[in-house]
Amino acid sequence: MDAQEIAERAGKTMFANDASSPHVGMTLDNISPGKAEMSLVVLDYMLNGAKVCHGGYIFMLADSCFAFACNSHNDATLAQGCNIDFIRPAVEGDQLKAKAIELSRGRKTGVYDVMVTNQNDKLVASFRGKSFSSGKPIFEEQAE
Amino acid sequence: MDAQEIAERAGKTMFANDASSPHVGMTLDNISPGKAEMSLVVLDYMLNGAKVCHGGYIFMLADSCFAFACNSHNDATLAQGCNIDFIRPAVEGDQLKAKAIELSRGRKTGVYDVMVTNQNDKLVASFRGKSFSSGKPIFEEQAE
Amino acid sequence: MDAQEIAERAGKTMFANDASSPHVGMTLDNISPGKAEMSLVVLDYMLNGAKVCHGGYIFMLADSCFAFACNSHNDATLAQGCNIDFIRPAVEGDQLKAKAIELSRGRKTGVYDVMVTNQNDKLVASFRGKSFSSGKPIFEEQAE
Amino acid sequence: MDAQEIAERAGKTMFANDASSPHVGMTLDNISPGKAEMSLVVLDYMLNGAKVCHGGYIFMLADSCFAFACNSHNDATLAQGCNIDFIRPAVEGDQLKAKAIELSRGRKTGVYDVMVTNQNDKLVASFRGKSFSSGKPIFEEQAE
Repeated sequence: MDAQEIAERAGKTMFANDASSPHVGMTLDNISPGKAEMSLVVLDYMLNGAKVCHGGYIFMLADSCFAFACNSHNDATLAQGCNIDFIRPAVEGDQLKAKAIELSRGRKTGVYDVMVTNQNDKLVASFRGKSFSSGKPIFEEQAE
Repeated sequence: MDAQEIAERAGKTMFANDASSPHVGMTLDNISPGKAEMSLVVLDYMLNGAKVCHGGYIFMLADSCFAFACNSHNDATLAQGCNIDFIRPAVEGDQLKAKAIELSRGRKTGVYDVMVTNQNDKLVASFRGKSFSSGKPIFEEQAE
Repeated sequence: MDAQEIAERAGKTMFANDASSPHVGMTLDNISPGKAEMSLVVLDYMLNGAKVCHGGYIFMLADSCFAFACNSHNDATLAQGCNIDFIRPAVEGDQLKAKAIELSRGRKTGVYDVMVTNQNDKLVASFRGKSFSSGKPIFEEQAE
Repeated sequence: MDAQEIAERAGKTMFANDASSPHVGMTLDNISPGKAEMSLVVLDYMLNGAKVCHGGYIFMLADSCFAFACNSHNDATLAQGCNIDFIRPAVEGDQLKAKAIELSRGRKTGVYDVMVTNQNDKLVASFRGKSFSSGKPIFEEQAE
């Protein structure tokens, strides 16, 4: 398997085991080594008291996208910590897209950048996540 | 109204208008000037591919708690940005509690600390949020 | 004055008043609207107990670069808060370069990204800063 | 050696090898397992173009204090990343104090909180750092 096949297989395996991302309607649109793209439509139950999308759902989209990107090497990783800046609000019906890229990846830790934009390509949030590798595979490459 | 009455009234008003926090089962357990406490039980649909609670729900709990704390002065505020460190995983059935305190509050911006613990009082996540004041009230104090 | 002339004049004015950046040998290599580039050579007094450059000097370079980028519009801004990830160490003699770009700029707040690289174009640190505008100019444009 | 003796010995060893912290006049005032206190006086060369202390020096104080706290177990650790919020400015002559505490410490990573205050006990900055353990000692306990 080459790196792209590994990324696709890792993404497929993770998504199949993930109850949380599909529960809110997230889709995995693209995955490649160190990169991922996911989408989320803002639904009525996601609105907070100010009638804008709860930051938790914007974070959840970015965090999932980060997780798929950092697991794309078939090395199961955990999120150690994340930083998010909320640039502009999202409202009901907005179609949010997240794109994650790998800034660095060492033996145990990595740094990833995720940008969340809306259907007008406007920046909704910038996110940075730090990963920690478990050293275990998502799927057994040999067992194929 | 004194500061505590204002905090309770702001919390009640916000929670009544908030679709997102109750949707996932969050409760507002306590609110006072610059402080808030909220709870969340980890349910099956919140589990990610590693069978632990998606960081997005832990963030959501912390972020809601931060929002109630920084809106407790009846000055509608927005989250500008947040930082979260994931200390230990949460699993299905865990009863998570968040406690938010105000580190500082200036004319326009504030800094809040939120600690998320589980039913064994173990730290699950540490969170820091930065607020930006809109200058508008949550409810009209004069109109009482 | 056009936006580029304003940026250059703001940068020149700030640097002339800044005791701290030149004290450690930092240079302002480039400034344009929302962007800046600065350099720093790692000297012996910057080394910590592990004989690598103290993170404080890497932060200082990134933070100065962020400050020049966000002040490039001739609107005096303050740093509200920053996040830095240390990717690889810097050692004595390393020639560090910081490049700051503007991710967003609203009426009062902005978000900036700064990447710090070494003389081999390897990433040393990724930095994100949040600005707050004072609403006052760095220099009087009318007084020209 | 008990934990307190180990902390003091680790602190002394680190400080003796650290060119950067003493160079700017920092002092290590206290160290105990998972905790440290350091001080810094704001000098003229630390002032930026706005005539307040460059955030880099405030960060440097917090970062050093974090480093001494997380190395107090005689397990050499690195800073992975840090977050700082600037609450109020520091000016020339201010006597800054940093206090670091350990929020969590796992096998490889830890989270530390550092508060920087001035001579009037007012909060100047809140800082959170993430450590990564090298697994190597600062000093050889057996060799004593």
